[in-house]
Amino acid sequence: MVCLVVRAGGSQVFPHWKQLFANLMPELEVREWDDPTLDPKQVDYALVWQPEPGRLAAMPNLRAILSVAAGVDHVTCDPTWSRAIPLIRMGEEETRVQMADYVLWAVLSLMRDAARWQEGQGQGVWVRRERRPALSSSTQVGVMGLGSLGGYVARRLVAAGFPVAGWARTPRQIEGVVCYAGQDGLAAFVASSHILVCLLPETDETRGLITYDVLSRLRQPSGLVNVARGSLVVEADLLRALEDKSLHGAVLDVFEHEPLPQTSPLWHAPRTLITPHIASEASRPARARQVAATIRALERGEEVPLRYDPQHGY
Amino acid sequence: MVCLVVRAGGSQVFPHWKQLFANLMPELEVREWDDPTLDPKQVDYALVWQPEPGRLAAMPNLRAILSVAAGVDHVTCDPTWSRAIPLIRMGEEETRVQMADYVLWAVLSLMRDAARWQEGQGQGVWVRRERRPALSSSTQVGVMGLGSLGGYVARRLVAAGFPVAGWARTPRQIEGVVCYAGQDGLAAFVASSHILVCLLPETDETRGLITYDVLSRLRQPSGLVNVARGSLVVEADLLRALEDKSLHGAVLDVFEHEPLPQTSPLWHAPRTLITPHIASEASRPARARQVAATIRALERGEEVPLRYDPQHGY
Repeated sequence: MVCLVVRAGGSQVFPHWKQLFANLMPELEVREWDDPTLDPKQVDYALVWQPEPGRLAAMPNLRAILSVAAGVDHVTCDPTWSRAIPLIRMGEEETRVQMADYVLWAVLSLMRDAARWQEGQGQGVWVRRERRPALSSSTQVGVMGLGSLGGYVARRLVAAGFPVAGWARTPRQIEGVVCYAGQDGLAAFVASSHILVCLLPETDETRGLITYDVLSRLRQPSGLVNVARGSLVVEADLLRALEDKSLHGAVLDVFEHEPLPQTSPLWHAPRTLITPHIASEASRPARARQVAATIRALERGEEVPLRYDPQHGY
Repeated sequence: MVCLVVRAGGSQVFPHWKQLFANLMPELEVREWDDPTLDPKQVDYALVWQPEPGRLAAMPNLRAILSVAAGVDHVTCDPTWSRAIPLIRMGEEETRVQMADYVLWAVLSLMRDAARWQEGQGQGVWVRRERRPALSSSTQVGVMGLGSLGGYVARRLVAAGFPVAGWARTPRQIEGVVCYAGQDGLAAFVASSHILVCLLPETDETRGLITYDVLSRLRQPSGLVNVARGSLVVEADLLRALEDKSLHGAVLDVFEHEPLPQTSPLWHAPRTLITPHIASEASRPARARQVAATIRALERGEEVPLRYDPQHGY
């Protein structure tokens, strides 16, 4: 019997996972991560979020690691993690739609000065407009990261009426999107965009990529949307760019430290909206469906999409 | 010489109007509304926002009244206003794009619980999600009013990925939009929509149309976006529906009394975002272009679009 161990959402939601897999794949044995009777040798697959370092390495027969999230940095940060074992990212339809919905909201919030009205409402004051609103048809959105998620988001932005540019490590082609690639293409990409949407994976190359220099070279009125990982943006640089107005606004869903500490200056940064890492989280049924399909494909010896590539770090 | 009198934005912006028309239509004589040397008999056209009652009626040779806004209730509320004189609404491309951008932002704000994150940020607190976010692909938006503005907004919502229904006084056909018409179609339209977008003109039939009964019959989680006129929504009913949670949220840009008084309970209504009547206001150059084109067409004896119909009240 094929055995899946689950570390996702804690023991209180484990019965829900068990029930979902009982319906989707009755032949699967589903065990809880912290079950004291679990023998690490019997585990074939692990569905995880932030597994304790060393635990996966102690499972000698592991055939694949399935991340419950689109990002896998919560697995690869474990120094004992084995690159030989396939690591699969989450990325089904719900994840993509939720992410695109959030990004669309964030871009429109920046374009229409939502932080200004938010402040006015907080004080019960009818504030005057500072500037004429930008139009979607003349606000270029620059999407960083054009994988399964970023590519979908870029296409949704085009459909919603925005001119869209994209940037990725390697050259890509997406209809209606002006694509830039690599370090050489970064400056031109940034200079052509009003609003930067960060959807890059966290890797050695992307950590700290969004600096004051990048933020201050966007077209005015400029904005930043970060829905990837907090570590991609140099926080001190972001605050500086907002303070000196070289960056017009920001919408932030991810942070170096989560939950964002009450003492963080980001809570009160000018022209900035903060949300508590809610941009995209697929429902448990949707994720269970992807996991079951992935395990079936791997058991048949097939290639699966969304497999992590250790060489490129995503 | 054809003479246009302008009452829009006050005396400080009049020189800008004058300069715009000097470029667009040099043969036009442009005069200020409060110019003491103006002879009412010489006025051929009036471009107005909230003209004082009686002033238009005192211009005996007026050929048309041009509203600077999409709504014309600020003219028709004058009991001395003559129905025989053509009254033209504002409605060029910028007005439509801005309105659609705002509505898209408002719908996404409701769908993604922006008011909840706004409250959390105000308190510097990382709040937990109350419910899983709805998806654009399964959130039906119901657009009330399918004229030049409403029809455009409905099409932009379809392109952005929403299922869209529409309601108008008379039957309409818009690709991708399920259209309902008249009093008979209202109940089915409301029952099929999650989020109601109010884009109706203010008329005797639409005033007070959005009642507790309407708001509580929307699909859950439900929402209201009002970008038309405050008078279309019964304010006490809206507050009641928000308080007892039969309405999940609201985004309001227009109010019975503007600016919204500091004492209004709407500022602190649950799950509600307030903006200061900024949804759509075309730039002065864009409006001047429409006015010049309209005057030219009328001078040639042609029919013009966006003409107010006294029989239907819009």
